[in-house]
Amino acid sequence: MTNTQAEQTLDPDDWDSFRSRAHAMLDAAIDQMINAPQGRVWHPVTDEIKAALQSDLPALGDAQTTDAQMKNLLPYGVGNTHPRFFGWVHGAGTPSNILAEMAAAAMNANLGGRDHVAIYVEKQVIAWVKAIFDFPASASGLIVSGTSIATLIALKAARDRVSDFAARKTGISAGQLVGYTSTQTHSCVARAFDMLGLGTDALRKIPVNANFEIDTDALRAAIKADRAAGLTPFAVIGTAGAVNVGAIDDLDTLADIAAGENIWLHIDGAFGATGILSDEIKPKLRGIERTDSIAFDFHKWLHVNYDAGFVLMRSEADHRRAFSERPDYLKGADRGLAAGNPWPTEYGPELSRGFRALKIWAQLSEHGTEKLGQLISQNCAQARYLGQLVDADPQLERRAPVAMNICCFRYTAPETNLNTLNEEIVIQLQLRGIAAPSTTMIHGETAIRVNITNHRTRRADLDILTAAIREIGAELVGSGSHAAH
Amino acid sequence: MTNTQAEQTLDPDDWDSFRSRAHAMLDAAIDQMINAPQGRVWHPVTDEIKAALQSDLPALGDAQTTDAQMKNLLPYGVGNTHPRFFGWVHGAGTPSNILAEMAAAAMNANLGGRDHVAIYVEKQVIAWVKAIFDFPASASGLIVSGTSIATLIALKAARDRVSDFAARKTGISAGQLVGYTSTQTHSCVARAFDMLGLGTDALRKIPVNANFEIDTDALRAAIKADRAAGLTPFAVIGTAGAVNVGAIDDLDTLADIAAGENIWLHIDGAFGATGILSDEIKPKLRGIERTDSIAFDFHKWLHVNYDAGFVLMRSEADHRRAFSERPDYLKGADRGLAAGNPWPTEYGPELSRGFRALKIWAQLSEHGTEKLGQLISQNCAQARYLGQLVDADPQLERRAPVAMNICCFRYTAPETNLNTLNEEIVIQLQLRGIAAPSTTMIHGETAIRVNITNHRTRRADLDILTAAIREIGAELVGSGSHAAH
Ligand SMILES: Cc1ncc(COP(=O)(O)O)c(C=O)c1O
Ligand SMILES: Cc1ncc(COP(=O)(O)O)c(C=O)c1O
Repeated sequence: MTNTQAEQTLDPDDWDSFRSRAHAMLDAAIDQMINAPQGRVWHPVTDEIKAALQSDLPALGDAQTTDAQMKNLLPYGVGNTHPRFFGWVHGAGTPSNILAEMAAAAMNANLGGRDHVAIYVEKQVIAWVKAIFDFPASASGLIVSGTSIATLIALKAARDRVSDFAARKTGISAGQLVGYTSTQTHSCVARAFDMLGLGTDALRKIPVNANFEIDTDALRAAIKADRAAGLTPFAVIGTAGAVNVGAIDDLDTLADIAAGENIWLHIDGAFGATGILSDEIKPKLRGIERTDSIAFDFHKWLHVNYDAGFVLMRSEADHRRAFSERPDYLKGADRGLAAGNPWPTEYGPELSRGFRALKIWAQLSEHGTEKLGQLISQNCAQARYLGQLVDADPQLERRAPVAMNICCFRYTAPETNLNTLNEEIVIQLQLRGIAAPSTTMIHGETAIRVNITNHRTRRADLDILTAAIREIGAELVGSGSHAAH
Repeated sequence: MTNTQAEQTLDPDDWDSFRSRAHAMLDAAIDQMINAPQGRVWHPVTDEIKAALQSDLPALGDAQTTDAQMKNLLPYGVGNTHPRFFGWVHGAGTPSNILAEMAAAAMNANLGGRDHVAIYVEKQVIAWVKAIFDFPASASGLIVSGTSIATLIALKAARDRVSDFAARKTGISAGQLVGYTSTQTHSCVARAFDMLGLGTDALRKIPVNANFEIDTDALRAAIKADRAAGLTPFAVIGTAGAVNVGAIDDLDTLADIAAGENIWLHIDGAFGATGILSDEIKPKLRGIERTDSIAFDFHKWLHVNYDAGFVLMRSEADHRRAFSERPDYLKGADRGLAAGNPWPTEYGPELSRGFRALKIWAQLSEHGTEKLGQLISQNCAQARYLGQLVDADPQLERRAPVAMNICCFRYTAPETNLNTLNEEIVIQLQLRGIAAPSTTMIHGETAIRVNITNHRTRRADLDILTAAIREIGAELVGSGSHAAH
């Protein structure tokens, strides 16, 4: 290769035709968002598309086919942009997310560190989060993919603080450190214990009261017993919005216990913590401002596109001491590109990090906290409305109090296996494209779980849902396939 | 709230005006990509923008201001879309990434699990990766944010396999398991040992040879000594493309050692592993097809937008046994939305996962592996060309062999503190907007590190770089501020 020989690039030869391609894709994306709320909730992937997605590794690329295939995929999402998607805890997204993603894609920022504008955008998001949770300016935070990783980061700091961070070098001796959470807690907490080398046995599952909130007396007793046995209680994990039924632990009492025992208090607030923006939920979160760390998601109830989570920590020092490590090739500087210390990579396990900060920043900036909070309240009112529909219907049976935005219930019929019946009702709702709730087990029995983290849902959608459940239930019972054995 | 009372949404009232907003943002994003290669490499963030990014949490949102502010940010990236960005190991991105991000944003998919088209796109990417590395169809993989998380996942599987996965429940007893890697290995490996509770002391740093490759005799000796001491060697971590100088360990010999000792062999191939697409690098990676796991990034040498990494594992069973855990509320089903088992969340620490798969899929599909491989070879040829420029210049001194796409050298001058001089040269190159290399330490001394993972770089850019280094070097030496003391 000589100086004059042609060198290649991945940039287009012709920017004008690239621009047309891009605008066509944008129109397809916008049309998708306009149409998503209509028609079926879930569009099962066709065999044709499945087959197309099994072609061999392409040696030679082709822009036209790529664009065409990509446009074909658009309708086959899980349905969470539809007003009758009620499954698990999915955010519904917003069209404006497309704008932030375009800008972020053009910048291609890596937020591991260095001195560039993306870092300042993340800093502003962190400052806003501190304001939202009434944390001091000295606190620290990090944008992550979701609550699972946020929880891992927080519990790592809690784990290491016990040893004054010596454990980073010397490792963990299992069987010494113990943590506490309720039986309703999300599986990501046990997963963090597993990842961190503590083992899931080290996570004590404390029973809940009738409202599915952690039994704080049982918690005190468990801590006491473990101390008596020579163990080291190091973390209590409370939940603000439990995944099954939406329960919020008594955070104020948890904060008292943690303070009294000198134990780290972490809150899994995956979707519930952002309820603090709603006048209705805010009082139920009292105490959250006294915790050591909070994990939550922007991609759930604030409808930022997947994925976008956050870990907030009271002690910047603990946070940084749990992760910081800067080898020669990542050395900082006080001027130039390597400035901007400390770098975000000193606060979590990732080095390269995409520009998630922009879509979060844009969502808050475009919609504001007032409206975002009102939409959360709206979902809670809708869940209560669904609770009323259920309570008013003799064939429907509520299985837990409506704690926030979640209503768990089932269809009943005499001499029927209600577990398989309700599982089948949910599958039929999904297959027929009518609605997409999920299922869970409550007191050992299958419940239809309707979670409303959806700014497109209308009360009329809940009328449609209950009517369909009645119809499908009757149909299935009539067919006799779910008779109790 | 009654049935008829207005319910709010985050969707626009007027889709037509939203469409205009979106097309305007797209044009701004495209203009940014067209202009990025011209002018300055790095645009330091202005005080005005910094101030604007310190405003309070917005109670009331505003779309117009949000868009305007977002457009203002565009030029202030780190510079990695510029042909003379040579710092660390950044990918340069491609304009087409914008298209994939728009489509992904419109779908707002969560790839934790369930049965929807995004999952099939990820499956195709996984199949393509197996083909790229000549792994069997029975292998498994997962798209992650980057090599740091990929490494964590691989080493977790390695850690747990030793105990037949009982360690997930019972935890780790530090001081028993030991792993091995070279002194050139990236810090993410030690970080994984720290996260996993093994402690960084459990990672033995084996010396390297003159080419900065792991000394395989020293490795054998270390394993033997540890076994004699009653310890359990569980993992060897080789590097394919070390961050400092681009060295590739002798993977074939590592595979022999790992097989003979029955130890897990993991490869950190963050940028180097994708060199397998280049005819030139492929032979140097011989043995990579025999490893237990590989961690690498799409956001580096394949120019997929940040972030996009991958972990590939030979044993699907080990991979899944290290992470799978499905509570009631995530129960699978054989039909409906909850189908599609196993779910991706059973292969890593994340539950919610964004649609990174689409931009990776689109990059491979649009450009094809041949061209992507040629661009890698092109960067290697450019690094050799830079090496020639350095070797031909008496004032420049190469500090390591050009192993792949990295050339480390320094400016020399008599009676001068070369460390501070070369650090200042790099800062001046950055501040003046001429080029953006980074620095590293080689044999205890500062080197200018030019890493070319950039499809926009031309040989002429390397001429500009070396001329500027000579000029700035002479200027700084002339000013006398770097005299040796
Ligand atoms: C209460 C709770 N905790 C944790 C999680 C996990 O969050 P993520 O999927 O963002 O990792 C969820 C997600 O559904 C949740 O509802
Ligand atoms: C050799 C090597 N390993 C690991 C990493 C970390 O990868 P990531 O930033 O994607 O986590 C890098 C990144 O620069 C690298 O060059």
